[in-house]
Amino acid sequence: MKALCLLSGGMDSTTMIYKLLDMGYEVEAVSFDYGQKHKVELESAKAIADRLRIHHKILKIDLGQFKGSSLTDQNIRIPEQEEKRQIDTVVPFRNTVFVLFAAAVASTKKISELFISPVLEDYQTYRDCRREFFDSLEKTLQLGAKDDTVFKIHTPYIDKTKAEVIKEGLSLGVPYELTHSCYIGIRPACGKCDACKERIAAFKEIHIVDPLKYQIEINWNGCKPMLKIE
Amino acid sequence: MKALCLLSGGMDSTTMIYKLLDMGYEVEAVSFDYGQKHKVELESAKAIADRLRIHHKILKIDLGQFKGSSLTDQNIRIPEQEEKRQIDTVVPFRNTVFVLFAAAVASTKKISELFISPVLEDYQTYRDCRREFFDSLEKTLQLGAKDDTVFKIHTPYIDKTKAEVIKEGLSLGVPYELTHSCYIGIRPACGKCDACKERIAAFKEIHIVDPLKYQIEINWNGCKPMLKIE
Repeated sequence: MKALCLLSGGMDSTTMIYKLLDMGYEVEAVSFDYGQKHKVELESAKAIADRLRIHHKILKIDLGQFKGSSLTDQNIRIPEQEEKRQIDTVVPFRNTVFVLFAAAVASTKKISELFISPVLEDYQTYRDCRREFFDSLEKTLQLGAKDDTVFKIHTPYIDKTKAEVIKEGLSLGVPYELTHSCYIGIRPACGKCDACKERIAAFKEIHIVDPLKYQIEINWNGCKPMLKIE
Repeated sequence: MKALCLLSGGMDSTTMIYKLLDMGYEVEAVSFDYGQKHKVELESAKAIADRLRIHHKILKIDLGQFKGSSLTDQNIRIPEQEEKRQIDTVVPFRNTVFVLFAAAVASTKKISELFISPVLEDYQTYRDCRREFFDSLEKTLQLGAKDDTVFKIHTPYIDKTKAEVIKEGLSLGVPYELTHSCYIGIRPACGKCDACKERIAAFKEIHIVDPLKYQIEINWNGCKPMLKIE
């Protein structure tokens, strides 16, 4: 079975691909260069795809044309988590655009199974991370496809927390040190933005030290180092 | 009432905008530079927007990344109508992408009424020109929007033939000589591609001479010249 996966270069999509390969899927991945400030995540995506030797395509979409999100607009600063302004990072219809472009690529390759990896925490900020939304988009794709391809949008982690996803990934040997989360797009990661904070909290929840380097000191008291599977 | 209109520079979208302005709408228009070979339609779109003094934005989307349509792929020749290969001109999810990008622009401007102008003939070739499809996309947009904006996708000409649209446009003084249809993207128009053939047939149906210039001689026997409203 062929699967087209949206690979951001973050932990969730990387874990998903490891899982699908483990299940025997033939995986191809697409990533998006959408004008994000944290473009460094694309290097992570490429490194992961290279390590797994899967076909990987980076699609260019200028979402900056829409304005209004701190993730793409140079005039808006990315908020720190304390500021509770995560709504600022919402790029209008970002997921919709991503899935749609992935479906377009899939349709030229006769792939009908699309995989995207929102987790439980995502839909608190992003309305287009709810399953209800993906059901509707799935139907829209089926109706709008060139032929009567029955596209499926799989969201295997939609009811899982980020901590649960990492737990699954650890058993699959996911190299989390290669993944990128920081919205600021720096390495070592800032440790302060929403994405960093969520990542750190998820590792703490399962009492594992995040193998990623941070600009600031993180208190990993009570956490064990991640085992490396070579 | 504010309306965001998809303006291709062709006859249908131009007529729609004339109609909406006539109805008292405050109109903004978006066009798409999507790698089409007939990019000259964007000049038409600009000329029409300029004449109407409406706000007009050209969004860039590289649909050529998907490959597979003669409209964007340099390796596929655009078919002449006789060849019955119109399916070749289908760009995967073109309308879906256009409406989605328009919705993203609209969401930054607090506009919720989107207008697109497929006509009766379109959905024979393009599945994403059916109302059933737009209903589903409308729901998807409502579910995926940044906030609870109730986007509406209006398709005023979906049950009208191209000839009926032109008839409406003539009474509104639409300058059809400014509009562009030819898929080859040349001026004078080729007169042979599917878009040209459809256009010519529609004018003949209402016994009016198309004011556009063609590369080949067209037989306008029994047709009257278009009246110009200055």
